[in-house]
Amino acid sequence: MSGRLSVIGLGPGDPAAITAEAVAALKSAQALYGYAGYLDRLPPQSGQQRFASGNGEEATRAAAALGHAVAGADIALISGGDPGVFAMAAAVCEQIDAGPAAWRALEVRIVPGITAMLAVAARVGAPLGHDFCAISLSDNLKPWSVVERRLDAAAGAGFVLALYNPISRARPWQLGAAIERLRGHLPETTPVVFGRAIGRPDERVVVTTLQTADPAAADMATLIIVGSTQTRLVARSGQAPLVYTPRSFAAVRA
Amino acid sequence: MSGRLSVIGLGPGDPAAITAEAVAALKSAQALYGYAGYLDRLPPQSGQQRFASGNGEEATRAAAALGHAVAGADIALISGGDPGVFAMAAAVCEQIDAGPAAWRALEVRIVPGITAMLAVAARVGAPLGHDFCAISLSDNLKPWSVVERRLDAAAGAGFVLALYNPISRARPWQLGAAIERLRGHLPETTPVVFGRAIGRPDERVVVTTLQTADPAAADMATLIIVGSTQTRLVARSGQAPLVYTPRSFAAVRA
Repeated sequence: MSGRLSVIGLGPGDPAAITAEAVAALKSAQALYGYAGYLDRLPPQSGQQRFASGNGEEATRAAAALGHAVAGADIALISGGDPGVFAMAAAVCEQIDAGPAAWRALEVRIVPGITAMLAVAARVGAPLGHDFCAISLSDNLKPWSVVERRLDAAAGAGFVLALYNPISRARPWQLGAAIERLRGHLPETTPVVFGRAIGRPDERVVVTTLQTADPAAADMATLIIVGSTQTRLVARSGQAPLVYTPRSFAAVRA
Repeated sequence: MSGRLSVIGLGPGDPAAITAEAVAALKSAQALYGYAGYLDRLPPQSGQQRFASGNGEEATRAAAALGHAVAGADIALISGGDPGVFAMAAAVCEQIDAGPAAWRALEVRIVPGITAMLAVAARVGAPLGHDFCAISLSDNLKPWSVVERRLDAAAGAGFVLALYNPISRARPWQLGAAIERLRGHLPETTPVVFGRAIGRPDERVVVTTLQTADPAAADMATLIIVGSTQTRLVARSGQAPLVYTPRSFAAVRA
């Protein structure tokens, strides 16, 4: 009996934001592996095993799921957002790259999900409507100097920025340093969006500017979008402003 | 009666890759507006009007959908992939920004979808597993010099690149020029992925290198991922190689 590993994107947390393909893959799996906080979002299913692990245990979680699948089981490894964006798919590939030959024969299927930047962008308009970059602010796995160089390059060349992993107990100053650095490239009025837990009861979205952006408003689950010089704010009657980046480099205004 | 406009992401084309929220929004709408090729993907629904338009008519399509919704109807404007990534959400925001005051009072809801780069990445592993940029190669709405500057900045700073809108009848040389330019920044062996129509009968995915990447292998619907110096290829027994970018800047190999 040959096994299979499905790496499944749960999206931002709202069950309605999961694809039908992901729902089917979750249902057919004999066992689920995942971060405890993500597993808690899924209703228990009779006969389906669950293996919860903590934050920061991505490598051992991926290896355990691979080992179980290669023994002949249909295994699901769950991921927040999209598995391919700062999430479990790369951890699985790293394990396959370094692991036993049998892991390179296993059927591995990645099931995409709505990654945080798409969910946050949708809530405010279209801030990612033009060229953009996604950067992880975590310096656990890369030197901070690399983050700085990428912030400079992206902001300097006119990309909108989506900042993942902005802050944690062990990384308290990085988001503040990133915002300060971006102030050297972009006008004070540049729109900035903080968004977390989109579609969940504890959803929070704040639209601010680069001048007033407060790192303390972010937690581990927050995704931050920093506009380019082209990004615009549209005030609206009786509702939150729209934030969008026009499709054209210098949009013609009516 | 107050209307509403939902801007809905259909994902890469496979009906199983649409979210439940998008399915519900499509069902409740009194009328659908969209590019004819995307409308054709959706089964007709009794009593629901359809307004198809051609490629390149985004501004007039967005304005027509806004005008219809503001008259008191529940309108869905459909978009391939995710509406916020080089798609209809920015076109709608541009129209609201420039249009009559009533449009700024309308309820507008963006329903995210799986954008092409996530779908293509999932098919091959995790090429977007580390910092990446999304760039449109279309120079219809921005000067080509801006595209060049962004390719230089992104590749030079170690971002993986996702290239949207690579080629069309009116833009035959841009992808070739972009690939040639990236050869000046990255090794010949850098993994490159061409992917189109993920989950549809005419899906096609090709894994190649920067040296051998052939612009003629792309069409309008192709998304191209160009790795960074960190992106790796893992040969596998009996299946296509994995392509991934490790989570750490200089991954420790076992």
